Order: sequence, then C-alpha cells, then structure tokens
Amino acid sequence: MKPPGCWKMLTVAVCMAFLACLQAQELQGHVSIILLGATGDLAKKYLWQGLFQLYLDEVGKGYSFSFHGAALTSTKQGQELIAKVLESLSCPEDMEPGRCAELKGQFQRLSQYRHLKTNEDYMALSKDIEAQLQHEGLREAGRIFYFSVPPFAYADIARSINSSCRPGPGAWLRVVLEKPFGHDYVSAQQLATELGSFFQEEEMYRVDHYLGKQAVAQILPFRDQNRKALDGLWNRHHVERVEIIMKETVDAEGRTSFYEEYGVIRDVLQNHLTEVLTLVAMELPYNISSSKAVLQHKLQAFQALRGLQKGSAVLGQYQAYSRQVRREQQKPDSFYSLTPTFAGILVHVDNLRWEGVPFILMSGKALDERVGYIRILFRNQAYCAQNEKRWVVDQSQCLPRQIIFYIGHGELGSPAVLVSRNLFRPSLPSKSWKEVEGRPGLHLFGRPISDYYAYSPVREQDAYSVLISHIFHGRKDSFITTENLLASWVFWTPLLDSLAHEVPRLYPGGAENGYLLDFEFSGAQLRFCQQQLEQLVPGPGSAPMPSNFQVLTAKYRESPLISAWPEELISKLADDIEATAVRAVRRFGEFHLALSGGSSPVPLLEQLATGHFGFPWAQTHLWLVDERCVPLWDPESNFQGLQAHLLRYIRVPYYNIHPMPVHLHQRLCAEEDQGAQMYASEISALVTNSSFDLVLLGMGTDGHTASLFPQSPAGLDGTQPVVLTRSPYKPHQRMSLSLPLINRARKVAVLVMGRVKREITMLVSRAGHEPKKWPISGVLPSSGQLVWYMDYEAFLG
Amino acid sequence: MKPPGCWKMLTVAVCMAFLACLQAQELQGHVSIILLGATGDLAKKYLWQGLFQLYLDEVGKGYSFSFHGAALTSTKQGQELIAKVLESLSCPEDMEPGRCAELKGQFQRLSQYRHLKTNEDYMALSKDIEAQLQHEGLREAGRIFYFSVPPFAYADIARSINSSCRPGPGAWLRVVLEKPFGHDYVSAQQLATELGSFFQEEEMYRVDHYLGKQAVAQILPFRDQNRKALDGLWNRHHVERVEIIMKETVDAEGRTSFYEEYGVIRDVLQNHLTEVLTLVAMELPYNISSSKAVLQHKLQAFQALRGLQKGSAVLGQYQAYSRQVRREQQKPDSFYSLTPTFAGILVHVDNLRWEGVPFILMSGKALDERVGYIRILFRNQAYCAQNEKRWVVDQSQCLPRQIIFYIGHGELGSPAVLVSRNLFRPSLPSKSWKEVEGRPGLHLFGRPISDYYAYSPVREQDAYSVLISHIFHGRKDSFITTENLLASWVFWTPLLDSLAHEVPRLYPGGAENGYLLDFEFSGAQLRFCQQQLEQLVPGPGSAPMPSNFQVLTAKYRESPLISAWPEELISKLADDIEATAVRAVRRFGEFHLALSGGSSPVPLLEQLATGHFGFPWAQTHLWLVDERCVPLWDPESNFQGLQAHLLRYIRVPYYNIHPMPVHLHQRLCAEEDQGAQMYASEISALVTNSSFDLVLLGMGTDGHTASLFPQSPAGLDGTQPVVLTRSPYKPHQRMSLSLPLINRARKVAVLVMGRVKREITMLVSRAGHEPKKWPISGVLPSSGQLVWYMDYEAFLG
Repeated sequence: MKPPGCWKMLTVAVCMAFLACLQAQELQGHVSIILLGATGDLAKKYLWQGLFQLYLDEVGKGYSFSFHGAALTSTKQGQELIAKVLESLSCPEDMEPGRCAELKGQFQRLSQYRHLKTNEDYMALSKDIEAQLQHEGLREAGRIFYFSVPPFAYADIARSINSSCRPGPGAWLRVVLEKPFGHDYVSAQQLATELGSFFQEEEMYRVDHYLGKQAVAQILPFRDQNRKALDGLWNRHHVERVEIIMKETVDAEGRTSFYEEYGVIRDVLQNHLTEVLTLVAMELPYNISSSKAVLQHKLQAFQALRGLQKGSAVLGQYQAYSRQVRREQQKPDSFYSLTPTFAGILVHVDNLRWEGVPFILMSGKALDERVGYIRILFRNQAYCAQNEKRWVVDQSQCLPRQIIFYIGHGELGSPAVLVSRNLFRPSLPSKSWKEVEGRPGLHLFGRPISDYYAYSPVREQDAYSVLISHIFHGRKDSFITTENLLASWVFWTPLLDSLAHEVPRLYPGGAENGYLLDFEFSGAQLRFCQQQLEQLVPGPGSAPMPSNFQVLTAKYRESPLISAWPEELISKLADDIEATAVRAVRRFGEFHLALSGGSSPVPLLEQLATGHFGFPWAQTHLWLVDERCVPLWDPESNFQGLQAHLLRYIRVPYYNIHPMPVHLHQRLCAEEDQGAQMYASEISALVTNSSFDLVLLGMGTDGHTASLFPQSPAGLDGTQPVVLTRSPYKPHQRMSLSLPLINRARKVAVLVMGRVKREITMLVSRAGHEPKKWPISGVLPSSGQLVWYMDYEAFLG
Repeated sequence: MKPPGCWKMLTVAVCMAFLACLQAQELQGHVSIILLGATGDLAKKYLWQGLFQLYLDEVGKGYSFSFHGAALTSTKQGQELIAKVLESLSCPEDMEPGRCAELKGQFQRLSQYRHLKTNEDYMALSKDIEAQLQHEGLREAGRIFYFSVPPFAYADIARSINSSCRPGPGAWLRVVLEKPFGHDYVSAQQLATELGSFFQEEEMYRVDHYLGKQAVAQILPFRDQNRKALDGLWNRHHVERVEIIMKETVDAEGRTSFYEEYGVIRDVLQNHLTEVLTLVAMELPYNISSSKAVLQHKLQAFQALRGLQKGSAVLGQYQAYSRQVRREQQKPDSFYSLTPTFAGILVHVDNLRWEGVPFILMSGKALDERVGYIRILFRNQAYCAQNEKRWVVDQSQCLPRQIIFYIGHGELGSPAVLVSRNLFRPSLPSKSWKEVEGRPGLHLFGRPISDYYAYSPVREQDAYSVLISHIFHGRKDSFITTENLLASWVFWTPLLDSLAHEVPRLYPGGAENGYLLDFEFSGAQLRFCQQQLEQLVPGPGSAPMPSNFQVLTAKYRESPLISAWPEELISKLADDIEATAVRAVRRFGEFHLALSGGSSPVPLLEQLATGHFGFPWAQTHLWLVDERCVPLWDPESNFQGLQAHLLRYIRVPYYNIHPMPVHLHQRLCAEEDQGAQMYASEISALVTNSSFDLVLLGMGTDGHTASLFPQSPAGLDGTQPVVLTRSPYKPHQRMSLSLPLINRARKVAVLVMGRVKREITMLVSRAGHEPKKWPISGVLPSSGQLVWYMDYEAFLG
C-alpha cells in the first residue's frame, strides 16, 4: 500500500498539470481548421482521418480546436455525409477502445459541416469563429484552410478567404493546396501569381503527398544520421545509378478526363518523383531541421539539373487507353490519344557530386506490380581474390551494395529502408523504425532480404496524417514553395513541349508487357531495349512521321543538298563532320574546324559532344567563324555557347581552342587593338594555306552568314581575312571571318533549320552571286566543297 | 567388289601423290630443329611433345626434318635420357594406335642427342647437317634453335650459332628464346642489344607461352569474327571493367632462388597478363593475319597505357614464403623477404576507346584455386520495367552481360569462351571450337553456365605445341618482339622501382586467405578492402618507414613549416589548397590560384586532379607564376605541364584559364608585344586588388623562385607586376610574376622537395631579406600568409 501522503501529492500534481494545460491552452490559443471539399473523395478517404489523427496527437498540448467541413452541398445533406465520415474514423491499433470512443466523441463534437459558397458565407464563418472565441474566452492562434477542391475553384475561394475570412491580428493563416499546380510553366506561374495576390508565400502549403510517405520523409534524416558513413559514398565516384520508381497496376479507367489532360509526366514525374530526386541529389544542409536551409538546397539541386531533351524520355501507353478515352469522353472511333501512361526519363545532375550518374525516373499505369522505391546502387569497385562461392554478404565488397527507400506495396508490403550489409549498419530513429522480421525466401533487388539491414516504421502512417501534422507545426520544408514549383516546371516544360506530338509505344498491360517497356541509355539518350517490330497503332492521323522519310539528297544552288527531319539531319551532319575529321587527322595529323554561333548548331554540338565516340578531339583545332563583341564569358558570346554545349564535355587541348580576340586590353573590338589581324595571323600560322578543313555556317533570314550582313562594307571581298563588322541585331559589333577566307576552306557546310528560314531559302535558291544583297550567295569555295544541310521545314516549308 | 581397274587407278593416284610428296619435299626442303637444354624440365614436359606434334602435323606436307636434342650432358647419358623421353611421347586421342606407333618410330629415328658446348661442337653440328643434306640430296629450308636454357647461357650459345652454325644461303634461321627477358628495362635492353649483335630481329622468337593458350590465342580472332556485334560495345561507353587474372594454388617452394629475384610482377604480370591486356585493348587491325599490323597495333596499345604509380598496386606475400627462402637459401632467422607473391594492379588505357575503364590485373601463388581468365564485364545501362522475377537471361538487358576468355583449370576445367546470352550469339570457328555440353549446377561469374553461349576447343592443345607450330610457320605475332618487350618494361620498371621497399601484406594461403586479398579502387588508387589491423611482419629491419612518421609542423624563416615524407606532404598541401579554395569560393564566389612550373608540382597537380572530389574547379581561375618563352604547346612550356597533369582531368571553364602571353604575333616574349603588361592588366581586371588567393612557389638550388633569378634586373622590386627575365638555364627567356605582386597574395605556399634542395634550404634558413642574392628570401606577403612545405629530404637531408 502506498502511503496516504503520496495520493495527496499525486492529486496536487494532476491538478497542477491540469492548470498547466489550461494555461497552455490560453497561451497557445485556438485553431480553426476549415476543410474545403469536405465531402469529396480525398477528404473522405484521407483528410478527415488525418485531422482526427492530428487531434489525437495534439489534444491536451495546449491548443483548442474546431473543425469545419465545408462544401457546396446543402447544409442538411452535408451534415449527414460528414456524420457518416466521422463515424468511420479509427484510432491507432494500440489505443484502448474506451479511450478511443471518448476522443472520437470529442472530435465529433468539435466538427461541423457548413455550406460555403459566397463571400457572405465566408464572412459568416469568420464571425462564427470570432463569436466562439469570445464566448469561450480563447485567444485565436490561427486558421487552416485545406483546399480539397478542383483548381478552377481556387481563385474564388482564395479571394473570399483573403477578403473575408482572415484571422485577427497576431494569428496565422495557412492555406493548403492540392495539385495539380498548373499544366506547364506558364499556367503554373499564372496560378502562383493569382494565389500570390491573396496570400503571402509563408501562408501557402502546397501538398505533394509523396513528401508525407514515411520512406520519403526519412531520406533527409537518414542522410543526416548516417553522415559519417555516407560522406565518402554519396557521390559520382561511388554511386552507379539512382532509380526513382512508381509502378501502378491500375489504369486510368474512370479518370480519363483528368488523365487525358495530364498524362504520367505531369501526374507523377513532375511532382512526386522530382521531389524525391531533389531529396537524394541535394547537398545536405548542416542543419536539416531548418526549413529555410532545406528549401534553399533543394532549389540549388534544381539549378544543377541538366536540361532534358526529347531523347531523354521513352513513352508508353497501355493499349486499352484510347478506347477508354473514346468511351468516357464520347470521342469518335478514329480518335487515338497520344497521352503517355508510362514514362522513363534519364536525368543528369550537372555538378561535381553527381556528374555522370544516371538518375532514372520511371512511372506507369497498368504495369505488372504496384510498388514505389528509390534505389541507390553503388559501383562495384572491388576485385575479390577468392572464388565467388566463398563470398559472404556482410564481408564481400563484390556483392551488390545498395540503399533502398521502399515507399510501399510491392513484395515487401510496407515502407522500409534497406541497406546492404556489406555497406554499413545504418542508424535510424529507434522509436519510429524497427528492424524487419525474417521473411525467408523474399528477394528484393537481386538479393535475399537477409542481405540487407532492413527497417520499417514501428507504426505505419498515412501520408496525409503526416502532412497535416506538418502543416499544423509549420514545417514548410515538407511542402512545395512557389520557387520550388516553378523550378520544377522550368525543368519539365521544354520536355513536355517537345514530346507533345510523340507517339507512345503501346503496351498490353500487366505481366503481358514482357520486355516491351525495358529501356536503356547510352550517353544522354534513352531508348527502348527492344526495337519495335510492328506498328501497333496507326498514328495520330495523316501527319507525316519522321520515320516515314529517308534522308533526301538533291542539289541546291548547284551544290549537294542533304535534307531530312531535324534529328536525322543533325545526326547526318555530325557523322559527316566526324568522317571529315578522321580523314583529315589521318592525312595531316590535325583537323581545323571553324564553327558558327547561334542556336541552330546547339543540338549539333551536343550530338558531337556526347554521341561521337571516335572523334579525334585531341587533334582537332576549334576556330570561331564569328563572334559578338562581348567578353568570352558573356552569355551572348558565341564562344560561351561552344563552352556550354561542346567544350565542357570533351577534351580538346587548351591551345587547340581559338576564341576570337574580341576582348583585348579590357576593351571590346577596338580597331587599335588589331584583334582581327591577330586572329588572321594565328590562322595563317597554324592552318596550312589558311584553308580550314571544315567551316560550318548558318544562314539568317536576311541572307547573312557568319557575321557578314547585307551591304557590309567589309568582309564580302577584299584581302582582309578577318574583319570587324556591324550587325543590325544586338550586340551590333562583331568579328567575322571574311568570305574570301571562308572560300579557301576544303569544305563548307551550311546548316539551315526551321520554318522561319523557308522564305530566304526560296529567295536564295534563285539568286545569283550577289553577296552585297545576300552574303550567303557569296559562299563558293574556290577549290573546296560546299554542302547544304536543310531540314524539311526550311526546305519544304 | 570394286572393279579391278579401280585398284589400278588408285595405285596410280597413290604413286602420283607420293611423287608429289617427293617433289614438295624437294621444293620445301629440310628443316633442322635443335633443342638446346633437351634434357631439362621444360623440354621433357612440353617441348619434345610439341616437336612430335609438329612432326605429326607437318609430315607429308613437303618438308623433311631432323631433330637434335642438345645439352651439356655426356653423349651416352644424354642419349639414354632422350630415348626415355621419346618413348613417352603420345599421339592425339583420335589417332589409330598402329599409325601412332609408326609415326613415333619415324620421329625417333629422326631425333638424336648431341653434346653441344664449345664453338667446335657447333661447327661439327653444322657440318653434320650439311653432310646429311648432301647425302640425301636435300635443299636446306632452315634451322630452328630452341633455347631452353638459363639466360646466363644465352650469349655464348648465340655467339656460337652466329659464328659457326648459321644455315647456308637461302635458308632461314630462327632462334627461340624463353623468359626471363631481363629483370627491368635496363637489363632487358642489355640482353636485347647483346642478342641483337648475333641475330636479326626477324630471326628471334621470344616465347610467352600464354600467347599459345587456346583461349588467349582466340582473343583477336574472336574480336575479328564478331566485329559487327562488338563494334559498338568494345569501348568505355559499354565496358565496365576488364579483369585479367591468373590464380595459382601452388607456392614457390623449391623455386625460391628464382622467385626471390623476380616476384609475381616480373614472373606473371609484366609478360603474360600484359600481353593479354594488349590483345584486349589494342585497336583491331583490319587484317588480323598480318603479323606486322598486329604488332604495330600492340605497340600503340602500350603507348596508351597510363603510367603506374605506387598507388596502382597492392602486394601480398604468403606467410610461409620468407621461411622457405631462409631454408632454401640458408638465410639467417632475421631475414624477411619483401618479394611479392601476390599482386593486384589497376591499369588505365588513356585513349578515347578505354578512358576511365579499369583494367584489373591480378596474380598470386597460394590462392584458393587455380584458374586463369579474362573477363570483360559490360555496364548495365538498362532499366527493366518488370519485376525481376520475370527476367529471363536471353532477353533481359538487366542481367549481367559479360564475355570471358577462360584460359583453363578452375571449375570449368578446360579453356573456353563464354558470352552472356543477353549479349549476342558469338561466331567461333566451328572446326576448332564446339559448344560446351550441359554442366548443371555450375555457376561462373555470378551466373549459371546456362546463361552463356559457351564454347571450348574441339581438341585441347598445349600452349607449346601451338607455339612450336607458329614458329615453324613464321607467325611472328605470337611472339614478343624486342620493341614489344622494351615497351612492356618501360611500363613496368617505374612501378617495380617504386615498390622495391614496400612491405607486402602477409596472407596465410589457400581458402584461409578470406577477404584479406580483396582490393578496391577509387580513382587511380588501389587498396586492400580490409584495413590491416595488426602488423604481421616486423618490417625489413631498421629503415624508417613513412608511416612511422607524423606530419611535422615547425617554423622556417619565422613562417609556418610543414614537413613530411613526399606522399604525405603532397597530400597535405593538396588538402590545404582545396580548403583554401572552398573558403575563397564561399566568401568571394571565386578562387584565384597562381601555379609554378617545374617538376615538383607534378604529383601535386595529379593529386588535385584525381583525388579531390570537392574542389570548386568551376569557380577557380588558374594563373601562371612564370613561363618559359616557348609556344604553349611546347613540351618545355610550364603551361603544357599544367595541361598534361591537371587540365586534362578537370573541367575549368576556358576563360578561367590564364596562360602567360609569351607567344604573341608569332613572336616569343618580344618587348614590343607588351605581353607582360597585358598579363598584368588581365590580373588587375579579374583579381580583386591583384591579390591572388594562393600563389604556389618552388625554390631552386640557387635560391631562385618563380622565374626570378639572383641578380635579376627586374621583378625583385619596383612597380612592374609582371616582368620579362633571363634564366641561367635554357630556355633563357622567361616571363614571371614579380616579388611585389607575389607579396600581395593572401597566401603563398613554397614547396621544396628532394635531397638536392638540402643545401639551399640550410643557406636560406639563415639568410635575411636578400632578394638580390636569394630571390626566395624576398617572398614575404605584406598582409597574407606564407607557409613552407618541405619533404624530409629537403629539410632533414
């Protein structure tokens, strides 16, 4: 028996705690949570349960709550729906049933439905909240508005909240927004600007529910708590690849009206998988509990992403999709959708840490299993001197080493963090993560589960519960800031644009997909492993497809013309340049290539940089055809384009690179600095007979080429090999090779691309030798060869 | 019954064939093969059998033969020994016994023993051959002398052959030499020069019996016959690594007197594994049956090998070895050998095809199994969208893809060529290679044997039989030319020198080795996976080991001094430079580093280039402290050193690289070109306050630093930031930063290395501020920091 004094003390303690609670409640104040779209699917499935969980977690910690389920439904009907939802709420498994019933009752009493539509409704809500506060003598802590409504309704609701339902001074406002956050960069920015006119940045919580998944939420803490072990490993020297995967078995049936507008990239990759990518790739802040530092490092990761090209993606569509769209949206039988339901994307992070490491993002519907994971596979850099029979997982460095954040489902069936035993024993918070118990026979990622240190959450939590708690605690790093959102769209929009008319590969769905969707990369290019043997879909009507055409060869201005769709054209030109280079090096030991600036050569440079294994770069001299009078590092500089799209990828000896000396004595193209003469004498000293092996030119819509513009007083004839010229476009001052020098070349290639060139192409085709009018017409190598490379749009319009 | 006319015809045909034989024999002539050391181990084990095989292959094809087994043994004893060897010869399994007995009898009759020692003996041999030729009316085709004798006997024998036993005019001489071919570059060259004074290059056949191993001999034909499939695969984009492995279970017991002088690198790696390496790495000649083309491409492969560093190797020695040496060579108990019996080496081939691909060479005695193989592992560049359970080997690109040339022994027990089924179906000559029959349960290189297309020779042939046939047919590409031999020693000798005093890791031998010998690479460095926890060997006596010393910090000329052994010093300096760079970039966004030329900084540059992952190169500006007045691409140029040892490895933007303008208007350092002024103004424009963040200097034995020599009229004081100077050494003309500019730096590091600097280090330590006498004494940053980095040899002598 306890001594009686003890009871007394205990009573006092309880009373004091109770008082403390009351005081805390006074101190912390009252929070009103308004769930907009309270009768919708998301709300019924996750959000009410999340709010209830919040209540369970926070009750007695000093806040008081009220929950307002709002929708457009009439009050009576809404109340009934809500009552039903509230009845179905569940407590954690380990909670005693009596306690559960009690808390559920409390929660139900604090929750109510209201019809919210007009501005007046919002005013009334605000008044009701204030009245309640006054009545109960509570201080207002803040209001949370959770937008579980379609995006078209955002603006009206936001306006009403801003004008009529903001909390009083000293209390915070938090609005929670659900995706989609726009359809591309422009629409996302519009939406952001609109919302920004009603709310401060710190008031907005954009939800990406993936950030609430337990395995995803564990990425940064894991990196932080295992800093020492990961420090030397988390970089390009040790990581072979990163896979960020979300596979679904379901298809889009019943949702095609949404899906048809978005497709898999907007639906999953632009948001969920990209967020995960940044968590893996970002530099780890010193203090990961600083939201500001996390968000800042995330943005830096976005800045390091290499721009995606059409070739960075493979797309698929499950075979039944078009039929479902036709049925659900009453489309004609001739309708075929181009919306991808499967995408594989190859991402490169261009910084010192990740350069060259492939990040593979993949998601699809109607696949063979439902699973999500992030897999970091480390390189095998060991040689094991023993026979493989003797390798044991916790010691051999030759067995696969990987770290997996297993998001859920799949064969494991729960979230997990897996670390190969030959890597290190990870540290995880023991309160919330426990070791996975034996699952004999289970293989994951090529190895038995026993090869891993495997941890799963002590208590599985729904992503929305996690996020609602984070909203309540103001942990902004679990949400998408405007900057973050726009950075993601900046990254994805060009790819989405370039893929808009691509025909996805059809796949049957489920296990039937076989190897049809396996894809592989070489350099920055991604392609399906299996060549498509048959055309499964007739294509989107009669528009000609690039693959329907062969490369066309003809004559233009009495010189050979090669014409093709852009990709084939660039590929052919790159092949031709390489062949010329190899021949020149074989004959003369070196290759002198003069390149033009501008945007047309960019894909060519990148093709040469990454796709041409045999190019004799070490023996190649690079010259400029023309240059703008800006410093070399200026974004306007032609040389800067060369640096960004070619030089950074290849190894040309420094002294084989010959930028034009437009910047001498801290001046730009001053006559008295004699830069043009200097370049000319450099050419004459290094290039035999001043004959370049290959000069690559473009053609402007005004018929200019190099920086030789119509009526140019210099460079169209005369004896000066290199000249200063003036351009009608900014920056006006230029340096350029002259026509006489260009015409000494062994070979001149003119690259002309795009519909915008159609007219000049026609005009010049009929022109004689009129360099004053059309400088390009003066290009006629005296003993070399001239070849025109035009894409179909420039040539055929 | 056959019609009688048929017999007649057959008889006629046989007779005609017989006559043709006789004619052919007349035509092709007689070959004398003299086996020197005919009673030795190699001869008894392989060479006689090889000669017999040659006889079996060639009999009736137009040559006549005589075989002379020669040795120093007395005639009678020798004859008995030879008779015994000849009795034990065996025919191929598929030969009918009667035929075998007949041919063996013929071979025995053609073979005889003779005592060969003095010049007179050789003269007598030659006379006997001539007599036989005359007697039998034969034309002489050629003579083969097979040197199966220790190398010290080579010179005398060679002299005797050359002076007294060359065949008559019109007949060829071939001398066959067995390794060792020297001990290092110098001894190999001596031996080659000596042999070269007796024989023409085309007369010498240096045997590397690995080139006769069937799987090795198949490498080039395989590459040739599968050109189409391999064309896109056989390069750095697709090959993850190449392993060239020879494991032995035996140890060196009984052979330690030989082994102690050679060790595993000279015994196996310098020859066998290096030959294999070149077969894998070389560019494939258009016509692989051209010996000349093959040898030329092989030499090119040697030229592309990146020089080995101490860090490119791991060494081991089985634990019983020193004891065996002590016993066999009567060494004292205190004797410990440093001879490695195990080596792992990381080789890089620095050309476009192989850049970055690790070639792992490994061999050792007393290992867990006897096996030899060459394994080419391809990168996995695929992502497979299906669950791994559904992957099937001949379709999935996600299962390992490899090509293995299995030299022999091991679990397979025979030579083989294996190609993963998800790679391609290889083409092999069906006459000599057949598919391996099912070996259920056998796993090789991580996969069941059924995952491979597996081929083995129809008839297993001993390497010596193969090579003797190649000698007979003059196929020089199966042998080591002098050029090839010296190229290999050029490659290996520096490593052998640098490892001469390394203590190898001890290993117990056999399966007991556990993970002790597993090794891993990071960058160009190789190290054992397991840290050595205990010192197993007391070390080679009292010589101090680098690891016995810590880095020492002290004062020199009142500034901080850091002293260590060279490797530690370079490593410390590189760390310090990186830390300075990171700080500068953090504070100012950029880092200005001025580097000196010369040889001391080379290991530093390489350390920075390959070992410093976090170096902010993209924000670093590189400046030169001084330059020789030669073109930038001249091997004498300091900039060329920077290019070769640093720039080629890293990605510094072009416009952050600032070579000194010593070469303007096609002139070198002409006053009127104002190069020095130009450099000064570039510095003043880009470097805040003209204060470099770090200037790295050296110190000459005359006390010079930068290109500021004693008594220099310019640069020691005054206002000119950059000056033209004269050096007492060639090339005399220089450009240099001045002392006043150097002294503006935030930090100056002076690197002094080598015993040769000992004297000046002492002199300068006592000097005051006397820049005219010792320019280095004028280095005293006005507000920056000066740190001296000296190795122990420079500092302690």
